[in-house]
Amino acid sequence: MSSKTSALVMGVGPEEGLGGSLCKRFAKEGMTVFVCGRTHKKVENLCTIINNTSGDAIPIVADVTNADDVINMMKVISKSNLPLELAVYNAGNNRPESFLDVTPEVFVSMWQVLCFGGFLTSQAILRLMIEQQEMTSKQSLFFTGASGSIRGKAGFSSFASGKGGLRMLAQSMAREFGPKGIHVAHIIIDGVIKGDKVVKGFSEYAKSLGEDGLLDLEAIADNYWHLHQQHKTAWTQEIDLRPFKETF
Amino acid sequence: MSSKTSALVMGVGPEEGLGGSLCKRFAKEGMTVFVCGRTHKKVENLCTIINNTSGDAIPIVADVTNADDVINMMKVISKSNLPLELAVYNAGNNRPESFLDVTPEVFVSMWQVLCFGGFLTSQAILRLMIEQQEMTSKQSLFFTGASGSIRGKAGFSSFASGKGGLRMLAQSMAREFGPKGIHVAHIIIDGVIKGDKVVKGFSEYAKSLGEDGLLDLEAIADNYWHLHQQHKTAWTQEIDLRPFKETF
Amino acid sequence: MSSKTSALVMGVGPEEGLGGSLCKRFAKEGMTVFVCGRTHKKVENLCTIINNTSGDAIPIVADVTNADDVINMMKVISKSNLPLELAVYNAGNNRPESFLDVTPEVFVSMWQVLCFGGFLTSQAILRLMIEQQEMTSKQSLFFTGASGSIRGKAGFSSFASGKGGLRMLAQSMAREFGPKGIHVAHIIIDGVIKGDKVVKGFSEYAKSLGEDGLLDLEAIADNYWHLHQQHKTAWTQEIDLRPFKETF
Amino acid sequence: MSSKTSALVMGVGPEEGLGGSLCKRFAKEGMTVFVCGRTHKKVENLCTIINNTSGDAIPIVADVTNADDVINMMKVISKSNLPLELAVYNAGNNRPESFLDVTPEVFVSMWQVLCFGGFLTSQAILRLMIEQQEMTSKQSLFFTGASGSIRGKAGFSSFASGKGGLRMLAQSMAREFGPKGIHVAHIIIDGVIKGDKVVKGFSEYAKSLGEDGLLDLEAIADNYWHLHQQHKTAWTQEIDLRPFKETF
Repeated sequence: MSSKTSALVMGVGPEEGLGGSLCKRFAKEGMTVFVCGRTHKKVENLCTIINNTSGDAIPIVADVTNADDVINMMKVISKSNLPLELAVYNAGNNRPESFLDVTPEVFVSMWQVLCFGGFLTSQAILRLMIEQQEMTSKQSLFFTGASGSIRGKAGFSSFASGKGGLRMLAQSMAREFGPKGIHVAHIIIDGVIKGDKVVKGFSEYAKSLGEDGLLDLEAIADNYWHLHQQHKTAWTQEIDLRPFKETF
Repeated sequence: MSSKTSALVMGVGPEEGLGGSLCKRFAKEGMTVFVCGRTHKKVENLCTIINNTSGDAIPIVADVTNADDVINMMKVISKSNLPLELAVYNAGNNRPESFLDVTPEVFVSMWQVLCFGGFLTSQAILRLMIEQQEMTSKQSLFFTGASGSIRGKAGFSSFASGKGGLRMLAQSMAREFGPKGIHVAHIIIDGVIKGDKVVKGFSEYAKSLGEDGLLDLEAIADNYWHLHQQHKTAWTQEIDLRPFKETF
Repeated sequence: MSSKTSALVMGVGPEEGLGGSLCKRFAKEGMTVFVCGRTHKKVENLCTIINNTSGDAIPIVADVTNADDVINMMKVISKSNLPLELAVYNAGNNRPESFLDVTPEVFVSMWQVLCFGGFLTSQAILRLMIEQQEMTSKQSLFFTGASGSIRGKAGFSSFASGKGGLRMLAQSMAREFGPKGIHVAHIIIDGVIKGDKVVKGFSEYAKSLGEDGLLDLEAIADNYWHLHQQHKTAWTQEIDLRPFKETF
Repeated sequence: MSSKTSALVMGVGPEEGLGGSLCKRFAKEGMTVFVCGRTHKKVENLCTIINNTSGDAIPIVADVTNADDVINMMKVISKSNLPLELAVYNAGNNRPESFLDVTPEVFVSMWQVLCFGGFLTSQAILRLMIEQQEMTSKQSLFFTGASGSIRGKAGFSSFASGKGGLRMLAQSMAREFGPKGIHVAHIIIDGVIKGDKVVKGFSEYAKSLGEDGLLDLEAIADNYWHLHQQHKTAWTQEIDLRPFKETF
C-alpha cells in the first residue's frame, strides 16, 4: 500500500464552490489533489491556495466532456504514480427555462456536462482503479446529484433529464463495480449551496433563505469524506443532503 | 371539435412489435395514425396492413433524433389538418454490455434514441398541441419506459442512463404541461415484450419464460389506450406493466 | 367458468364516495357486488340504489378491523356460490394534526383501519380466491392508496404511517400471489376526491380547487375496472391518479 | 450549553448486536448512554461493559411498545438532567413466513415493535427535546430501517408493512421537526448484520456470505454517529448501507 494517495475532483470552479471545497478538504486529509476544471485561472488559483497551506494540489485544465481532454487528464494522474483513491464527478450546470424555450443545443450541452462527462471520465477512472487495486485499500467514485436527479419539475427539463441520466449511470456502475471493490455513490444535494455563485450572484435570494438556509460548503464536503471512509461492509449508494429548514 | 383525430407513434419497427401494436390499436379506435419509423419498408408494410383493414395510416420515414426529420414529420402531420390527439414516443434500443465495453459512440447514440429524440419530438408536438387546443378535448403525450428507467443494473449502463434521462424529461413535462391540459405519462414496461425481436430473435429465451411469461402486444396497447381515455381529473403520470410471473 | 361473478368493495360510505362509486361501476359491469361498510344505513341505501337500477348488490355490515366481522363477511360471500373475481380494500380515514397532538389511541385506530383491516381481509380473501381458481379466469385484489402512501408530510404522520404500511403489505402480496395468478395492485390517489365528504363537508375548499380540480368518482372507478381487465401478461402493480392541475 | 450530554438507544439486545454497538460508540464519544431493552440481563450486561471501560451507561429495562414503560424510560432520562442529544429507535424483529401463515397476533405484534413503539417513544422524546432546545446545539432522532422499508417481498409481509409504516412516520416527523431544529433520519440497512443473532444463530448462512459479506457492527455505528455530527445546513433524511458485494 502506498502511504500517499490522490484524489481527483472534476468540475472545479471558484474557490468558494463545491468543487473547491472538496479539493481543500481532501488536501487537508493528506491526499494529493488533482484539481480539474475548465477555467485555467480558477484551477490555478485553487492550486495556489492549497499548495500555500501545506497541501498538495496539481492543476488539470480540462473539459470533461471532451475525450482528448479526458485522456490528458488521466495522463497527469498516471504520471504522478500515486494511487487514485477517490474521484468525484462534480461537473454540472443549471439553466431553468420553460420547456419550449430550451434549444436543442442547450439540451445537448446540458446533457454533455451533466451526464456524458460522467460516462467518459468514469470509464477512464475505473480502468485505472482496477489496475491499481493492489496499491490501495479504498477506491471511491462519487457523483454530485441534485433534487432534479429524482424529480422532474416544470422549468427544469434539461437539468432533470441530465441529472436523471447520471443517477441511473451511477447506479449501474455501483451494481457492477461494487462487488469488485469500488465504491460508487450518488450524493443528492437538495437545496441551495452557499457558494459564490449564489452568495455573490444572487445575494438577495441567498439572504431570503435566512440563517442556515443554504448548504455550507465544508458541511457538504464532510459527507463526501465520510462516504469515502465507510467500511466496505457498510457502503452507501445514495444519500441526500439538505438544510434543516428546506421544504422537501 | 373535429370528428376525426390523429395519433402519432414514433419508433415503429416490425408489425409484431410494440410500435406496430400501438398503431393498429389506435387505427382500430378510428384515429388516423401517423406511423413513424426509420425503416421505409417496415413503415410502409404496417401502413398497408392498417389501410387494408379499413384503418387510416400515413407513413412517415424519419429518424426522430434528427432535427430535420422531425420538422418533416411535423409537416406531414400539420398538412393532414387533423388534430393530433395522441403521440407516443416509443423509440428505443437496448444493448447489454459491461460498462467498460460501452464505446462513447454507443453511449451517445443510445442516449440520442432513448432520450434526445424524446426531447426533439416533444417540443414539436407540444407546440402543435398548444395551437390545436380548441380543436380537440384530449391531448396526450406518452413515453415508453422500462425497468431501466428506475433501476440501473450491471450491464445496462447506457440503457438505464438514457431511459432515466427520458423519465425525468417526461416528469418535467408532465408538471409543466399537465395544468395546460396535456396529459404526459410514462409507461414502465418491466419484462420481455412478446414481439418479433424476442420471439424470433431469441426464441429459446422466449420459450424459457413459459406460458404468459412475455408481455402481450395487444395487452400493452390496451394500457396506452386506457391512459389516453382517462378523464382529466384522474390522470396517471406513471404506470408499470409486467407479466404476472415476473419477479420484480 | 361461472357466467356470473362477484366483487367485494370494503370501506363503503356515502353513495357519492369512492366506495359507492366502485360498487355502482362493478354492478354495471354485471357483477354481483358485496357492499361492505360499517354503517348499516349507508350500506343498505347503496344496495337499494343498485338493486333498483337492475344491478345485484348484497349488503354486508362489517368493521373490517374486527376478525369476527371479517369471518361473517366471508360467510356471506361464500354462501353466494359466486366466484369472487375482484376485491377492493378501500377502507380509510384521515385526520390531519400535528404529530404531538396525535394520541396513541388515534394512531392505533388509524393504523387499524388503514392497514390492519387490509391484512385481515386479504388473508380471508386470498384463501377463498385460491380455492376458487378453477371457477374464474381473473382474480384481483386492489388497495386504495394516497399521496401519503409514498410521502410522509408534516401533519399527516398517522395517515402516512398507516398508508405506508398498507403499501408495503400490498407489494409483498403482489410478489407472493402474482405468480399464483392473483393480481394485487395499489392505486395511489393523489388529490382530493369529488365525494360528499369534501363537496358537502368542505364546500368552500372544494370550490377553491376550481373546475376539474377534484378527482371525479366515476373517473377513478374506470381505473380500478381497467386494472381488473388487464391481461395477465401486462399487470400493473402501482398506478397514480391525480387531477390534471394537481401540483405534485 | 451542557458539557455532558446523553444518548438513548432503544432496542438493545446482545452486546454483539446493532443496539449494543451503537451504545458503545456513543459512550466512547463521551455521552452518557441510556441503554434501553426488554431483557434485564442483556441491558445490565452491556451497561457493565461500558461502565468498566470508562464510559457512562444507565440501564433502562422497558418495552417500548408499552406506554407506561415509555413514561418510566423518560423519567430516568429526565432525572439525569443531561440534555438528550441523540435518540435511536432500533427496536425490531423479523419473522419470514408465507403471507397466509402470518397470524393476526404476529402481524399486530410485529407492527407494535417495528412501528408503534417508534410513535410512542418519538412523541415522548420530541417533547423532551423541544423543552431542552436551549441546553444543546444538536438534537437527533434516528430510526433503523431495512430493505423491507422500501420493498415488499414475498414472505416478508409483516416485516415490510411495519417497516414501511415506520419509514413514513419518520419522514413525516422529519418534515415537521426538521425546521424546528431536530434532525430526524432513517437509516436503511440493506443486508445482513454481523451480530450474534446471525453469526451464532445462523453460522452456516453467515459463512456462505463470505468475507466482508455481512455489515460490520462498528461500521454501521460510524454512520449513525456521522449523521448526528452533520451540520444543520446539510442534513440527511435517508441513507442506505450495504456490504460491497450485496446484490441490490
